[in-house]
Amino acid sequence: MDLPAFAARIPIDDRGLAYGDGLFETVLLRDGKPLLWAQHKARLRRGCRVLGMPVPEEARLDALTEHAGAGLKVLKLIVTRGSGGRGYSVPMPSVPRLLWQITDFVPQIQYWTEGVRVRLCYLRLGIQPALAGLKHLNRLENVLARNEWHDPDVVEGLLCDSQGKLVEATSMNLFWYRHGVWETPRLDGCGVAGTLRAALMQRLPITEVTLGPEVLQEAESVWLGNSVQGLWPVVRLDDSEGVRQRSWVLKASRRTLQREAHALLGYPAIGEEGECCDW
Amino acid sequence: MDLPAFAARIPIDDRGLAYGDGLFETVLLRDGKPLLWAQHKARLRRGCRVLGMPVPEEARLDALTEHAGAGLKVLKLIVTRGSGGRGYSVPMPSVPRLLWQITDFVPQIQYWTEGVRVRLCYLRLGIQPALAGLKHLNRLENVLARNEWHDPDVVEGLLCDSQGKLVEATSMNLFWYRHGVWETPRLDGCGVAGTLRAALMQRLPITEVTLGPEVLQEAESVWLGNSVQGLWPVVRLDDSEGVRQRSWVLKASRRTLQREAHALLGYPAIGEEGECCDW
Repeated sequence: MDLPAFAARIPIDDRGLAYGDGLFETVLLRDGKPLLWAQHKARLRRGCRVLGMPVPEEARLDALTEHAGAGLKVLKLIVTRGSGGRGYSVPMPSVPRLLWQITDFVPQIQYWTEGVRVRLCYLRLGIQPALAGLKHLNRLENVLARNEWHDPDVVEGLLCDSQGKLVEATSMNLFWYRHGVWETPRLDGCGVAGTLRAALMQRLPITEVTLGPEVLQEAESVWLGNSVQGLWPVVRLDDSEGVRQRSWVLKASRRTLQREAHALLGYPAIGEEGECCDW
Repeated sequence: MDLPAFAARIPIDDRGLAYGDGLFETVLLRDGKPLLWAQHKARLRRGCRVLGMPVPEEARLDALTEHAGAGLKVLKLIVTRGSGGRGYSVPMPSVPRLLWQITDFVPQIQYWTEGVRVRLCYLRLGIQPALAGLKHLNRLENVLARNEWHDPDVVEGLLCDSQGKLVEATSMNLFWYRHGVWETPRLDGCGVAGTLRAALMQRLPITEVTLGPEVLQEAESVWLGNSVQGLWPVVRLDDSEGVRQRSWVLKASRRTLQREAHALLGYPAIGEEGECCDW
């Protein structure tokens, strides 16, 4: 904890490295203040409980944000089960290792205003209820999905589970507005339950659903969001071959969810013409 | 590579730690000679190909075994995608990191002779064909499964996939003899394709099947094996509550597979009465 974060090093026998036996959080900091901090700590606590790991002391987590300084930053923190154990058997007691890194951050403002083009990924997420929702260190599916395409105009990829139901994007949660209702995929089989998603669901009626990507054809607007980037409107959806499936034209009236999200993160509300002049 | 292996350290931004973005192998060494080395290197190559990572140079891998010295050891090697990239996007090019550790090893001789008691795990493996068979660093399912029980008399746990089909044990492959045929679970949806399993399938007719655990009621003998421990007969199977489902009494005539496995690893053949006097 005394070293500059980037130089922090972990031993080769750390179980986070060996097995992905741990959790992480990626937290937006503004002038040293962590945003959605209660949600981040709650998800971390839940993950530790599910994995049977001691929960890091709250004071120790809170202290991390003191290193941030002024401006917009991202704190990445990793909690591993530490070293030891016999193979997959966990050490008793285990002594978790807390690692962290703070980096400067600039959000993608043009994605807030102009929206993003996304694609449907080939890869289907495996269904594993025991780990669903956690931000654990087993993220090879996300890595494979994100590297299915290299076209820089395609910003994100939508993921379905092995039963063909929508789950999330590779690093964001998914929302859409349909028949007067906000909806988001249920995450009881796979996917990461985002902290922004959790906070939005506390403030707005958002229904969790189990539906395939065909539902997006009926959506008036589609959104991707996380606690670092805020909320991006989707303006074009391609299939896995890059063929356009649908486009959306944004109206300000549909920016309700974005306004709520950006209020939570201290990001600006985007105006009718997609303007974002005061930020 | 100059440091003693145990002291080797990796930076916090390594993708193996961040995402489990990498592979590992656990290799038995006898007097510096790696056993099933061709199979280990083949699986590593296949894993690198699937993950889109450069394959470590063969000479560099071969050189690792030179550090072993006399006696029985285990070489654990980890190949991560290294540092860099933007989130899940991989760095182009990526510079993989090779980490390794050599430790003394003593096999569980009494498990060879007397056999082991195993249980059926609650946890079901998620089905992910894109990663099936690989020895990648995303092993939280194995960790959760192995820590379902703490009774030291129960040595391993059998895992089914989310469709209820047998796959493997938490750190071993599974084999059984039924109606005059050797069988092992097909591993196209999940599980680790063991190097001992691969070598045995090259030498004996072993049929890959997709069957639930009820098939074990028909099995004349059931075996667990990997490239470090050799082959263990299962003498008792419990359900997830610890209630006995079935027992097996071993006859020497059924030790065919074990004899082949142990010949591959330089371990002794076990005699009719389970004796193992010359080792």
